[in-house]
Amino acid sequence: MNYSIGMDIGGTNVVCGLVNADGKLLHKIKQPTESSKGSSYVFDKIGRMIEELLVKSGIEKSQVSVIGAGTPGFIDPIKGITLFAGNLRWTQVHTAEEISRRTGLPVYIDNDVRMYVYGEALCGAARGYEHVLGITIGTGLAASMINNGQLYYGSGYMAGELGHILMPEITYRCGCGMTGCLETAVSGTGIARQAREQMENGRASIMHDWLNGRSLEALTAADVSKAFDAGDPLAVEVLNHTGMLLGKGLASAVTLYSPDIIVIGGGGALAGERLLAPMREQLKQSVYSGYWDRLTIRTAEMLDDAGIVGSAMAAGERLSSTGTQIHQQP
Amino acid sequence: MNYSIGMDIGGTNVVCGLVNADGKLLHKIKQPTESSKGSSYVFDKIGRMIEELLVKSGIEKSQVSVIGAGTPGFIDPIKGITLFAGNLRWTQVHTAEEISRRTGLPVYIDNDVRMYVYGEALCGAARGYEHVLGITIGTGLAASMINNGQLYYGSGYMAGELGHILMPEITYRCGCGMTGCLETAVSGTGIARQAREQMENGRASIMHDWLNGRSLEALTAADVSKAFDAGDPLAVEVLNHTGMLLGKGLASAVTLYSPDIIVIGGGGALAGERLLAPMREQLKQSVYSGYWDRLTIRTAEMLDDAGIVGSAMAAGERLSSTGTQIHQQP
Repeated sequence: MNYSIGMDIGGTNVVCGLVNADGKLLHKIKQPTESSKGSSYVFDKIGRMIEELLVKSGIEKSQVSVIGAGTPGFIDPIKGITLFAGNLRWTQVHTAEEISRRTGLPVYIDNDVRMYVYGEALCGAARGYEHVLGITIGTGLAASMINNGQLYYGSGYMAGELGHILMPEITYRCGCGMTGCLETAVSGTGIARQAREQMENGRASIMHDWLNGRSLEALTAADVSKAFDAGDPLAVEVLNHTGMLLGKGLASAVTLYSPDIIVIGGGGALAGERLLAPMREQLKQSVYSGYWDRLTIRTAEMLDDAGIVGSAMAAGERLSSTGTQIHQQP
Repeated sequence: MNYSIGMDIGGTNVVCGLVNADGKLLHKIKQPTESSKGSSYVFDKIGRMIEELLVKSGIEKSQVSVIGAGTPGFIDPIKGITLFAGNLRWTQVHTAEEISRRTGLPVYIDNDVRMYVYGEALCGAARGYEHVLGITIGTGLAASMINNGQLYYGSGYMAGELGHILMPEITYRCGCGMTGCLETAVSGTGIARQAREQMENGRASIMHDWLNGRSLEALTAADVSKAFDAGDPLAVEVLNHTGMLLGKGLASAVTLYSPDIIVIGGGGALAGERLLAPMREQLKQSVYSGYWDRLTIRTAEMLDDAGIVGSAMAAGERLSSTGTQIHQQP
């Protein structure tokens, strides 16, 4: 009983990994999710993936105590239900029970970003810190707070929606129904959109040349980073502006949560200092010095593995905690 | 051992109260703090006040298990030290130890606003709610979050400084060193200041008549509320603007903390619907509907007693919790 299995069930891929008691990821396997084929198809596939993972690792199922899985969207971790996950097209799916039925193991689920941040907090960039604010910059902007080693959920497990703080500088409409949400600009999508809109309005940029006749819709945040490195004034302006906005949003989060450390992950973290330098400058100006002085800022260390290790460790923690006995028995 | 003593040590008065196990305040006594005479003088007075409280209540000291005290400013509740309290002129004062030495009882201290919010959460307007955001509008603007019944402290016990979130609409310099902090406008002081500055610039107001030759410096937030009731356009504008700013600040707090309920207390809460109606309207527009739909907003019920009951109950909780054995023995 010394192993846990961690999973990241994403819109594109499912990744399963075998994790030991120290949080070390020993083996992992990945398959396309194919969520368009329905949730039963995905769960059957997950059942087979876990068998395969055990065979490849040379581990008996009896040596595995628990499965933890991160899924996107709104989750009820107590009931083990994925309430709504847009990019899986899942509504009210009993994820924990379904995986438990196919594996014979207790299963805990949680939001994928929380599990990513939990992994970084336990075994990655925030190892040893008690108060961890983790953010992921990807298609959107998500965040999760760990306070005294405990995940902070709030009412309805809805805390930490940094991406939906409003910014007067932003005029984009958001999928949530509001206008001006931070993630409409501070995200991979948002960075590309800012550049694209200026280019549509006739702004010169080296990125015009790279499109080679393709539509401006093809532009990505990675293109903007590349243009930044080539000294393209538009790309520099967009990443500076995005970093400034992120710094302002984080200032509110730091003032309310008082973290020791901010860990920045997700695909957007690949922009690195192009984004983080202006973010840091703005954040320093926008918080009381007592917060800034005690704050560490780091990029994530574990990349894609953070969610797998985090969900495996969180599941192990929940299994052993009598206070939160929420695992699903087959 | 069925009683606790709760205290509120403020810049103006010290209040001590006897609280039973159900959180009912049975007796209280109040004296001026006279902090200018030094902390030893204040602690000697507190020792005598507690003797007097017991005599008046007809209770033996052996029936009291613990003392809890709220003090303003930055507190280390684990070490029992008031790190810095500007309006008491205290720096690094060993408050818990000093009171314990004079009373022979274990003493726990905490920030006065946290204790006020804890009192309202346990026995006041937020009774029965798990995720409580409490704010006090007074000389400044302070907040505290209770999550799953647990006070949220963050790194350095510094979480919840809602008053120091920056607002682009605000241009006042704050005592903390920044410019544009929410509390420079959303506070009793801030409300009076907004009205005063416009009157200094020649803006007409019924409040000019009320001053009767006194300087505009004499203007208070209560005057602005009174002028609002008289239909004074300046007062209406100031309270609408202040409510709107509070709504924007609370929107960030709701999005990050996800409370079930917001409790609004402090002297500024006396402005009531004059302030809360525009606050509510702005908040509804500025948060994702999933937060708004689950949110209750109430004014505090216990007024000045919340801090006394809260500190007594928190001290009782800490005394009985093996996880946080932090009380000071004489």
